[in-house]
Amino acid sequence: MEQIDDQQIKADDRRYVLHSWSKQKAIHPSIIKKAEGIFFWDDSGKKFYDMSAQLVYLNVGHNHPKLMEEFKHIGDIPFASPGFATASTAELARKIIEVAPKNMAKVFFANGGADSNDHAIKIARMVTGRYKIFSRYRSYHGATFGAGNLSGENRRFAVEPGLPGFIKFETPHLYHEKIDFESEEAASDFYLDRLEHQILYEGPESIAAIFMETIPGSNGVLIPPKGYMEGVRALCTKYGILMICDEVMSGFGRTGKMFAVDHFNLEPDMMTFAKGVTCGYNPLGGVIVSSSIADYFDDHVLLTGLTYSGHTVSTQIGCATLDIYKNEHLVEHAAEMGHVLAERLEQLMRFASVGEVRHLGLFAAVELVKDKQTKEPLMGYGKDYGKDTEGLMKKFVGLLMEQGFYTYSHDSHVMIAPPLIISEQQIHEAMDLFELALIKFEKELFSDHPVVAK
Amino acid sequence: MEQIDDQQIKADDRRYVLHSWSKQKAIHPSIIKKAEGIFFWDDSGKKFYDMSAQLVYLNVGHNHPKLMEEFKHIGDIPFASPGFATASTAELARKIIEVAPKNMAKVFFANGGADSNDHAIKIARMVTGRYKIFSRYRSYHGATFGAGNLSGENRRFAVEPGLPGFIKFETPHLYHEKIDFESEEAASDFYLDRLEHQILYEGPESIAAIFMETIPGSNGVLIPPKGYMEGVRALCTKYGILMICDEVMSGFGRTGKMFAVDHFNLEPDMMTFAKGVTCGYNPLGGVIVSSSIADYFDDHVLLTGLTYSGHTVSTQIGCATLDIYKNEHLVEHAAEMGHVLAERLEQLMRFASVGEVRHLGLFAAVELVKDKQTKEPLMGYGKDYGKDTEGLMKKFVGLLMEQGFYTYSHDSHVMIAPPLIISEQQIHEAMDLFELALIKFEKELFSDHPVVAK
Ligand SMILES: Cc1ncc(COP(=O)(O)O)c(C=O)c1O
Ligand SMILES: Cc1ncc(COP(=O)(O)O)c(C=O)c1O
Repeated sequence: MEQIDDQQIKADDRRYVLHSWSKQKAIHPSIIKKAEGIFFWDDSGKKFYDMSAQLVYLNVGHNHPKLMEEFKHIGDIPFASPGFATASTAELARKIIEVAPKNMAKVFFANGGADSNDHAIKIARMVTGRYKIFSRYRSYHGATFGAGNLSGENRRFAVEPGLPGFIKFETPHLYHEKIDFESEEAASDFYLDRLEHQILYEGPESIAAIFMETIPGSNGVLIPPKGYMEGVRALCTKYGILMICDEVMSGFGRTGKMFAVDHFNLEPDMMTFAKGVTCGYNPLGGVIVSSSIADYFDDHVLLTGLTYSGHTVSTQIGCATLDIYKNEHLVEHAAEMGHVLAERLEQLMRFASVGEVRHLGLFAAVELVKDKQTKEPLMGYGKDYGKDTEGLMKKFVGLLMEQGFYTYSHDSHVMIAPPLIISEQQIHEAMDLFELALIKFEKELFSDHPVVAK
Repeated sequence: MEQIDDQQIKADDRRYVLHSWSKQKAIHPSIIKKAEGIFFWDDSGKKFYDMSAQLVYLNVGHNHPKLMEEFKHIGDIPFASPGFATASTAELARKIIEVAPKNMAKVFFANGGADSNDHAIKIARMVTGRYKIFSRYRSYHGATFGAGNLSGENRRFAVEPGLPGFIKFETPHLYHEKIDFESEEAASDFYLDRLEHQILYEGPESIAAIFMETIPGSNGVLIPPKGYMEGVRALCTKYGILMICDEVMSGFGRTGKMFAVDHFNLEPDMMTFAKGVTCGYNPLGGVIVSSSIADYFDDHVLLTGLTYSGHTVSTQIGCATLDIYKNEHLVEHAAEMGHVLAERLEQLMRFASVGEVRHLGLFAAVELVKDKQTKEPLMGYGKDYGKDTEGLMKKFVGLLMEQGFYTYSHDSHVMIAPPLIISEQQIHEAMDLFELALIKFEKELFSDHPVVAK
C-alpha cells in the first residue's frame, strides 16, 4: 500500500469510487482511522460508539486480536478452486451444521448475502420443479436480481421489470395495523389466513418457496407475533412449499440465539447467511440446506456455482470467527446484554417522538413518529435516498452522530445493533448519548408545540 | 484452524459441502496440498501444471510471495463499511482507472463476476431509463439472476423463467458457420447487419445495453472477426445503447494486453471485472464506468449496493496484485509467452481430433472433433453436467490429468490459460504433456479407423 494522506484518500475516493445508495455529489465520506472493540475514530479524531456494528456485521467488534492473528496464517492452505476439497471450507461447513437447526445437513458457500439468496432461489426451483417464489413487503434480501426481486421495498425498484412468478405478501406489523387484535395469536391467525388464501389463489403446486427474513432487519426489526412463524411453517409443509429463512442479518448470535429461527419452534428447509459468519473480516455468505435437499443433489446436478464458492481465506476467517462465538460465549452474552438494552429502549417510550421500540437480543430498532397518537411516521414511506424533503430523519441521525452514536436509519426507524461484545456499561453510555440526541431533536421538532418528556 | 488429516477433510467435505455444477455423489474432490507458481501437488503427491490457473484467475500463480506478505498487513486499514472512504479502496479504484481505457472514470466494487454483472445491468437501466438488455449466445456471465439471464448457454436454464427484456443474439463463430465468407471483415458485416436488424425489431429506444464478453472465455475463447467489435460499438453509439464488456475472465493481462478491449479500436461504456484483479487471493469484482455514466450519478441516486462493496481486505490485496502486474511486467510477458503458446497450439492442428485452436495471449482453447471434415464436435452441445453419455470429453480431460496437465473443459473444447508468469520452457513442457494425452486419446478414439497424425 502507498502511504497517502487523508486529504488525498478523500480526493481519490470522490474522484474514482462510486458509493452505494447515494447521489455522489451529496456525500462526503470520512475515514475510519482507528477502530477497537465497539469504538472507532474518524479522521477528525472523533470517537464513535459503533451502534450498528457497521452494517450489522461486526459482531465480534473491530480489530479482534484472534482474527487479526488468523490473517497471519493465510496461505497455510492453498487457494484451490471450488472443485477441490479444502480444509477450511470443510471445517467451516461442519461447524455451521453443528450450530444450525437439527434438520440441516450441508452448506453451499457464496460471497455475500445477495448472491446467497440468488442461489437459494435456484436451489428451491431445482428441488421442487416449481417456479413461483413468495416473499414479503417490508423485507430486504440484497441487490442482485434474485435477491432484489425478493425484496419488498423500494430498493427493489432498480431490478424492475421483475422476474416472473415473484409474489409478495404482508409482514405482520402490529404497530401500524388498522385492526385491533385481541392477542398476538389472533393477529397471527389473521395474517396466516390471508397468506393461505394467497397461496391458494396463486396455485400451491406452482410455488417453490416462501422466503422471509426471520426477523426483518433493515426494515425495522419486526418481531413476528406469537405463533406466526410456526404457522408459516405449517402452511409450507401442508402445500409442499420450501420455507427459506434469510438469516443474513439476524444470524450468528445477533438476537441472543445462534440463529433467529431458534426462537421459534420450527425447522426451515433452507437458511441463507453472510455478515456474522466472518463478521465482515472477509466476504462470505452461503446457503444451509436440509438433509432432504442435500440428498436430492446426490443424484441431481446442482446447476449453479461461482468462482469463489468456499474461498480459502473467507472460510478460514469463518472458522476463526465461529471459534470466537464459542470460546467467548458471545451468543449467551448477547442474550444477557439484550436485557440491558431492552430496559433502556423501553425507557425511550417516554419521548414524544418515539412511536415504538422493537428488540430481540442485540437486534433493535427505534421507530420515530411526528405524533404519538396518529402514529404518523417521521418520514413517509419511500422517502429514503434523497426524497426526504423535510429531512427530519437525516437531522436526527446527524444529531446521533454529533453525540458519537454511530448507526444507520431506514424509513422512520433507527437501528441499534452494536457488536455483541458490548458491555453493560457501554450500553448505558451509548443509550445516554441516544437520549441526549433525542432531547435536542424534540426541542427543535416540537418547538412550536413543545411536548414535555415524562 | 484445527489439524485434520486428509481423509477427515475429504469425509467432512463430502458430508457437509455442496459443490457447484455437480451431482454430489459423482464427485471425489482431491485436496491441493502444496502450490507454487504454475504448479500444485494434490494429496496423492501428484504434481500438476495448472494450465487453467484454477478457474482462470491465478494470473500471478500460486503462493506469490508479495501477496502472501500483504496478508500480514491486513488490519493496518480498519474494516470500514462502504459509506466510508477507505485508503485501499480509493487507491485500487485509481489504479484500475489508470490502466483502463481513457474514457473510464469510476469504479463500483462488488464481490465476484456475477454480482458485478448484476450491478452493471442495474446501472445501465438507471442511466438510460430503458429496460431491454442484449447479450449473446455462447456467453457466460455468472450465476446470479442478472448475470444468469445474460448468459447464453445451458448454465442459464437454472434462472428460468427469465427476466423480461433480456434478448440474445449470435456470437460470430466462423469455424462452425455454414456460410463461407470471403474475409473476416465480410463476416463481421454479416453479423453486424443481423444485429442491427434485431435492434430495430426490438426497438432501439427500449434497449439499455449490449453486454458481451469481449472474448467469450469458458465458451471457447471465441476471437471476434476483424471489425466486429468496432461495428458493435458503432451500432451502440448510433442507437444510444450502452456497450458493456465483461472482462471478468479476459481482463488483467490474460490476452497479452491489460484488457481484451485494448486489442480493438473502441471504448466501451462500462466494463465488469473480477478474477484477475486479485488473482483469486481474495474475492473481488466490480464495474468500471465511463465518465459520462459517472457524471450521471453525481446528481442521481445510485440505487444499488452491497455490504462488502470495496471490502478493505479485497481492495488491499487488489492494490498489491496490480503492483505485481506492473513491477513484474506480467502483461508484456503474457504477450510474449502468447507467441510461444500460439506456435505450440498451431502444431496441434496435425492431430485428427483437433478441429480448431483459438488463442490470444495466454487465453486459449482447443476444440475437439470426432471428424475433421464434418467438424462434428466431440460432444454435442448441451451435454455438459452429467449428460455426456459417450464420455469422450471426460475421457480426454482424464488423460490430461493423468499426464499432470490440469485444466477444465466446457462443451467440446479444453481451456489453456495458465498463470501469466509461465516460462517458455514450462509452456513446452506442458504442451508436450498435452500432446501425449492427445496421442493416447486418438489411439483409443480412432482405434477402428486409425488416422495417422501428419
Ligand atoms: C436480511 C438481509 N439479507 C440480505 C442482505 C444482502 O447482503 P449483502 O449486502 O451482503 O449482499 C442484507 C444486507 O443488509 C440483509 O440485511
Ligand atoms: C466472463 C465471465 N463473467 C462472469 C463470470 C462469473 O464470475 P463469478 O464466478 O466470480 O461469479 C465468469 C466466471 O467464470 C466469467 O468467465
